[in-house]
Amino acid sequence: MTTLLEEVRPEVVLANWTNAIKRSALQEMLAAASRPGVISFALGLPAPELFPVNEFEQAVSSVLGSDPRALQYQPPFTPLKSQIVELMRRRGVYCREEQVFLTAGAQQGMNLLVRLLLEPGGQLLMEEMIYPGFQQLVEPFAPDLLLVSTDPETGMNVDEVEALLKSGRRPSFIYAITDGHNPLSVSLSRRKREKLVALASTYGVPIIEDDAYGFLSYDGPLDPPLRAMDEDWVFYVGSFSKILAPALRVGWIIVPEKLMRPLSVIKEASDIDTATFSQRTVSAYLAAGHLPNHLSRLHKEYRLRRETMHAALLEHFPAGSHWQKPKSGVFMWVELPGGLDAGELLQHAINKEQVAFVPGGAFRASTHWSQRQSLRLNFSHCAPPQIEEGVTRLARAIADVTDHAKCYDQMVPIN
Amino acid sequence: MTTLLEEVRPEVVLANWTNAIKRSALQEMLAAASRPGVISFALGLPAPELFPVNEFEQAVSSVLGSDPRALQYQPPFTPLKSQIVELMRRRGVYCREEQVFLTAGAQQGMNLLVRLLLEPGGQLLMEEMIYPGFQQLVEPFAPDLLLVSTDPETGMNVDEVEALLKSGRRPSFIYAITDGHNPLSVSLSRRKREKLVALASTYGVPIIEDDAYGFLSYDGPLDPPLRAMDEDWVFYVGSFSKILAPALRVGWIIVPEKLMRPLSVIKEASDIDTATFSQRTVSAYLAAGHLPNHLSRLHKEYRLRRETMHAALLEHFPAGSHWQKPKSGVFMWVELPGGLDAGELLQHAINKEQVAFVPGGAFRASTHWSQRQSLRLNFSHCAPPQIEEGVTRLARAIADVTDHAKCYDQMVPIN
Repeated sequence: MTTLLEEVRPEVVLANWTNAIKRSALQEMLAAASRPGVISFALGLPAPELFPVNEFEQAVSSVLGSDPRALQYQPPFTPLKSQIVELMRRRGVYCREEQVFLTAGAQQGMNLLVRLLLEPGGQLLMEEMIYPGFQQLVEPFAPDLLLVSTDPETGMNVDEVEALLKSGRRPSFIYAITDGHNPLSVSLSRRKREKLVALASTYGVPIIEDDAYGFLSYDGPLDPPLRAMDEDWVFYVGSFSKILAPALRVGWIIVPEKLMRPLSVIKEASDIDTATFSQRTVSAYLAAGHLPNHLSRLHKEYRLRRETMHAALLEHFPAGSHWQKPKSGVFMWVELPGGLDAGELLQHAINKEQVAFVPGGAFRASTHWSQRQSLRLNFSHCAPPQIEEGVTRLARAIADVTDHAKCYDQMVPIN
Repeated sequence: MTTLLEEVRPEVVLANWTNAIKRSALQEMLAAASRPGVISFALGLPAPELFPVNEFEQAVSSVLGSDPRALQYQPPFTPLKSQIVELMRRRGVYCREEQVFLTAGAQQGMNLLVRLLLEPGGQLLMEEMIYPGFQQLVEPFAPDLLLVSTDPETGMNVDEVEALLKSGRRPSFIYAITDGHNPLSVSLSRRKREKLVALASTYGVPIIEDDAYGFLSYDGPLDPPLRAMDEDWVFYVGSFSKILAPALRVGWIIVPEKLMRPLSVIKEASDIDTATFSQRTVSAYLAAGHLPNHLSRLHKEYRLRRETMHAALLEHFPAGSHWQKPKSGVFMWVELPGGLDAGELLQHAINKEQVAFVPGGAFRASTHWSQRQSLRLNFSHCAPPQIEEGVTRLARAIADVTDHAKCYDQMVPIN
């Protein structure tokens, strides 16, 4: 006997935009790359063995020992703001404490700025290949995306930006990663920096400058970021995640003073804006003077890892592969020759060779622009011997998948 | 000579909803209440001298000493989830690890749930007098508010909820603070809890249950929260802010398993979702078994402070004042007799008597419902002698303002 009357149970109704939610590429990679034995070039992870654990523990003790208000609801910790003003001078940026807004990392900084600037259904301008975490955070706004291309050697196509603005488009903002671009690993050329900033102020379109990697440089100082050239139209986003430790969740934005109040209301509504414990700990770490040596150590070690990966790619990857040696950031962007599918390669690489990366297509903002033959490889997380081993494995996977594709090509005419 | 041609400089255009942004009442109070010499009953601050600083420092050391990945990008810390499952049993809630989602405090928990459920311009149901941080977080959605009243002794008017649902309204959710209501300090009666949960499941409208104060109880165990009665329609929000320390920013939500994935995408887009350092620290603190004693200490000390405030109000406040002794939470809600204006009183109280509170009107969600004669007084932050002194000062300020009002009343007929 079957029940004729099926009970109709109501279902929780979610906001419409959530229909578009898929498990993010980042989450998929976290899952796959954390399997034991897998060498992972997938995520932008810092080298855990370089975390300044002892200095950080000292900082915690000094904070807890000096003031129990470190654990209390407290306004953003002002001494850290003035330390950030000092730090920004290393990037050639001169700003004031009153322009520094503390955040729970760069991702939250971008989130607050986007909520400040973007209407639902509003327009924004960004590159076709771009950090998926940024795409994810604008998704609930169902934005109208103006996309421009990126040159692998000089960065964002600023002429395309100009053409869009000249044609009358007025996006709420332009999103730019000036150095250590994620995923393309390029630094924007000096000429393009100047032109982009001039366009922003001429057309009255602010730039959200994501400088999460700007304090990592491997071939001498980088060009100053956009914020060094304009304080009215460039809203700068910085972070301690890549130079100190990600799990602290401390970052900052630098904005015109008049935006501090609306930002603080948005931040308070998001999370009460009272993460003073981690802010005080970072401040104590900086006050103890550890950062310059730590940065030198990171530069030296990450430079070595970049060289190791470059040499291994030269030795093992097929002829016709292309990549640049990045001046900043933590990624190599590799284009493979021929008709290889990076998604297929990833499955093979993880299952047969125990090595992971992110296929280029994961960074595409446009559905009609393919990136089948490109890979993003991280070089900061693995130690040099692992990098060599991982690239060797990956080259083997490429050879396998290529052979398989050839066999298949040969079979097709027979059928 | 004047310049005839004024240069027209473009201005940064902000999202429309930001026009409504005002400096929040909470921020104003933080500023006024932090002036030296002011006794503040304004904010819901825990007693800083009760923070378990030493135990927390031990927890940090054990975390940093055992695993450098504590500072790395890491998925939410699963052992803390199972500790929260244990903790929830103290509230009579039986849930599974797979239903626990870690957040940066209760405010973020509510934020994530609201983004999950509410459309721009969507409808929601809440009380007329309610936590301003919640009003602030729904503001960018320009929501259509269905407001119900609150009984000072039994809580939210559930009959009004029923009438709205019966009339065909289907809000995206109902917001409820079951215990230690902010600002009214009431606990929802058992009968109303049952009815509210039944309404939610009958009409298919989820409840966001804010239980930030639910682990603080002064007259024996509280009734179980709504989540104990229904796991499909009640989305529970909890926090370590009031029972451990606010600056850690660790909270949790309990939701049906199928909502974990969309929530994790929203959280990742907000702040990367990798605050594992504070999560591990809280977990180490709990693992060391400190919480039960700490809770007993909080209950004992806050009960004493509540009694002190009650006695001081009885002794010093004018006849005709009304308040309840709350079973939970950290506030007393006081209604004054006569035509006194609490906003005017606050100015006088801060400037002349150096004592601060929040006027009832700050919690109003509706513009047409006045709360001129009510005050919210916090009793958790100040030590008992300060509470006595503060209430004495406040009573003096009330007498002054009342006298002044009387003089003014007498003057009016003369003019």
